[in-house]
Amino acid sequence: MISFLSDYGHGDEFVGVCHGVIARRCPEARVIDLTHEIPRHDVRTGALVLRDALAYMPAGVHLAVVDPTVGAGGTDARRAVALRTAEEDRLLVGPDNGLLVPAAERLGGVLEAVDVGRSIERLQPVSATFHGRDIFAPVAAALAAQEPLAAIGEPMPVEELRALELPSAEARDGALITHVLRADHFGNLILDASHALLSAAGVRLGERVVVEVKDQVHPGRYARTFADVAAGDLLLYEDAQRMAALAVNRGSAAEHLRAGRDDEILLRPA
Amino acid sequence: MISFLSDYGHGDEFVGVCHGVIARRCPEARVIDLTHEIPRHDVRTGALVLRDALAYMPAGVHLAVVDPTVGAGGTDARRAVALRTAEEDRLLVGPDNGLLVPAAERLGGVLEAVDVGRSIERLQPVSATFHGRDIFAPVAAALAAQEPLAAIGEPMPVEELRALELPSAEARDGALITHVLRADHFGNLILDASHALLSAAGVRLGERVVVEVKDQVHPGRYARTFADVAAGDLLLYEDAQRMAALAVNRGSAAEHLRAGRDDEILLRPA
Amino acid sequence: MISFLSDYGHGDEFVGVCHGVIARRCPEARVIDLTHEIPRHDVRTGALVLRDALAYMPAGVHLAVVDPTVGAGGTDARRAVALRTAEEDRLLVGPDNGLLVPAAERLGGVLEAVDVGRSIERLQPVSATFHGRDIFAPVAAALAAQEPLAAIGEPMPVEELRALELPSAEARDGALITHVLRADHFGNLILDASHALLSAAGVRLGERVVVEVKDQVHPGRYARTFADVAAGDLLLYEDAQRMAALAVNRGSAAEHLRAGRDDEILLRPA
Repeated sequence: MISFLSDYGHGDEFVGVCHGVIARRCPEARVIDLTHEIPRHDVRTGALVLRDALAYMPAGVHLAVVDPTVGAGGTDARRAVALRTAEEDRLLVGPDNGLLVPAAERLGGVLEAVDVGRSIERLQPVSATFHGRDIFAPVAAALAAQEPLAAIGEPMPVEELRALELPSAEARDGALITHVLRADHFGNLILDASHALLSAAGVRLGERVVVEVKDQVHPGRYARTFADVAAGDLLLYEDAQRMAALAVNRGSAAEHLRAGRDDEILLRPA
Repeated sequence: MISFLSDYGHGDEFVGVCHGVIARRCPEARVIDLTHEIPRHDVRTGALVLRDALAYMPAGVHLAVVDPTVGAGGTDARRAVALRTAEEDRLLVGPDNGLLVPAAERLGGVLEAVDVGRSIERLQPVSATFHGRDIFAPVAAALAAQEPLAAIGEPMPVEELRALELPSAEARDGALITHVLRADHFGNLILDASHALLSAAGVRLGERVVVEVKDQVHPGRYARTFADVAAGDLLLYEDAQRMAALAVNRGSAAEHLRAGRDDEILLRPA
Repeated sequence: MISFLSDYGHGDEFVGVCHGVIARRCPEARVIDLTHEIPRHDVRTGALVLRDALAYMPAGVHLAVVDPTVGAGGTDARRAVALRTAEEDRLLVGPDNGLLVPAAERLGGVLEAVDVGRSIERLQPVSATFHGRDIFAPVAAALAAQEPLAAIGEPMPVEELRALELPSAEARDGALITHVLRADHFGNLILDASHALLSAAGVRLGERVVVEVKDQVHPGRYARTFADVAAGDLLLYEDAQRMAALAVNRGSAAEHLRAGRDDEILLRPA
């Protein structure tokens, strides 16, 4: 079982070609497309989606490709890696740019890592721009076909894996200072805050909340679900991943608040 | 075999996560994505697409999620249900908001219904917004794994299932009064009329037809296929589901007529 | 194993319905969606994508539907065909409008062809507009189920298959005159030129190149990968299919050059 996440989109044949490469190397592998609409080159959104979705995926090989520096040399060069997680024995395959790290941490961290940039499984000549097809998909398929990590890459020290910096919510002056981790395609804004942090800041479920973005103040309500506020109204809610998020019922919080990734958002009781 | 229809779109990971949930519960299940681009919250379009497509799907479990009131309480609350059809022994899973009913009627009606809102198969804690992941997908997977209806939900009276109201074409004053059931993504308008109704109203294949929308009159032709009229011209035709539809050859009837869902459209011989 | 390419898009249920038809006829068949986002009615782009992707697909049945004249009569009528290639014994299924020919030529040409327009496998009544569902999908599924070509269609002379005209780059007055074969969804422009042709015209990897479109001259660089030029800069590169292509790093060459399919583009050393 292979899950597959990327920023390739559905507009071109990239995803289909990777499926073909996998089927040639391991005809028995079944591939679940997690999503291919990660915003182009947005490693952090890819990393967060992968981390949060893995619990719902069957254990197996998890292929992920969001790779803005593919083919680059010099200081921009990144390794191509395959990792084994401490828990559940899952295998993650992708570029070493932080994409895989939050998912691996959720599963107890990385037990073993190999550099697959020159894997014997790669399709040669390797193109400069499509390592999904030429490196990552064949390596993932080989792992699904039960090849051991040692057979498909060069061992590397786990501590050399590149980390991913994430913002961190904090309480200050009676407000909770949060950040937009990512926006989904409906304009919902996912924040770096949990229900526990909101409670600690005095923001209570069912009550009104003040949402401040770029010095603009917007009234909202901390609700359980969209239907708890009127159409067009702003709500703060706990999303399906148990993260705080902002939405507009039948609208777009991103447009309503003119906010997006990384913007700072202050929350306080009304 | 499970078919899967929703309004989740491909922009986010919702569909992929449901696939993962299904594969964890029933690894042998094969899932066919019927479509995930039902217009958001448009239960009727979902119901019509499901009804018309089922004849082309292998018999099995049919999972459908278009669920505008997910998580709502009070009078907006809806049941989550699984149904067995009288013919072909098909199993339909989804919200009880009318989405499943036209498909079930096409298959001889509902023989047995269970409420799965508190199914032992659900993933707990159930989120307020993503019942596709937490209730419908695991229930569909359990049915694909041969669990009987009685094991995955509480029996409920079939007559308590919510019906779906559909408009109805009628002849009046020498014209056939039809309604737009739905628009597809090319701007073709599907009407609530059959070839037999058109014939009864004097509209004949190959001849000219007058199309009246919002007091504007448009000339067209009742043709067999798009290529029978010039580029940019309006045609009435029998679509692949044998319903009357309006199109513009290499254009959009929705734009040409400025019409959409539920609009009344009068057809008469020229 | 069936690969499936079309211009149906993901907006409607067309692709899902074809999957259902295949699963009903051949439940063991596995379908790989190559892409369904070929620009609508663009037979040539479909033919080029199919040709270039086949090497990455497992050998088997290759279903392709880009069919602007579906249902047309008279001189616009086209055959529906299934072909066997000389090399690798692959089976191609689709309309006889040139879509399959470049792929077949890449595999040594066509050994055997049958007309499947009246195949015993077709779903009757055949609709005027959806031959993917009614003819091509069931024929592909029957071939995947090991039916011989002779059982699913009428033999036809290979030389009656419709060819596809492709532009051809040529050197003239110290420049290489190329044409845009297709644009991908990122605005990259794929040209009818190889690295060998570029070299012969004096355009060298790593050096500057002059790109002339519609009498406008644009400076660029012949680079190995996007990261070799600054953001916003134009580059000429060898794409993952080893064809010359134009791109703008983190931008769109189609917009930058205001160029698209079939436009003539002159390349010369700076």
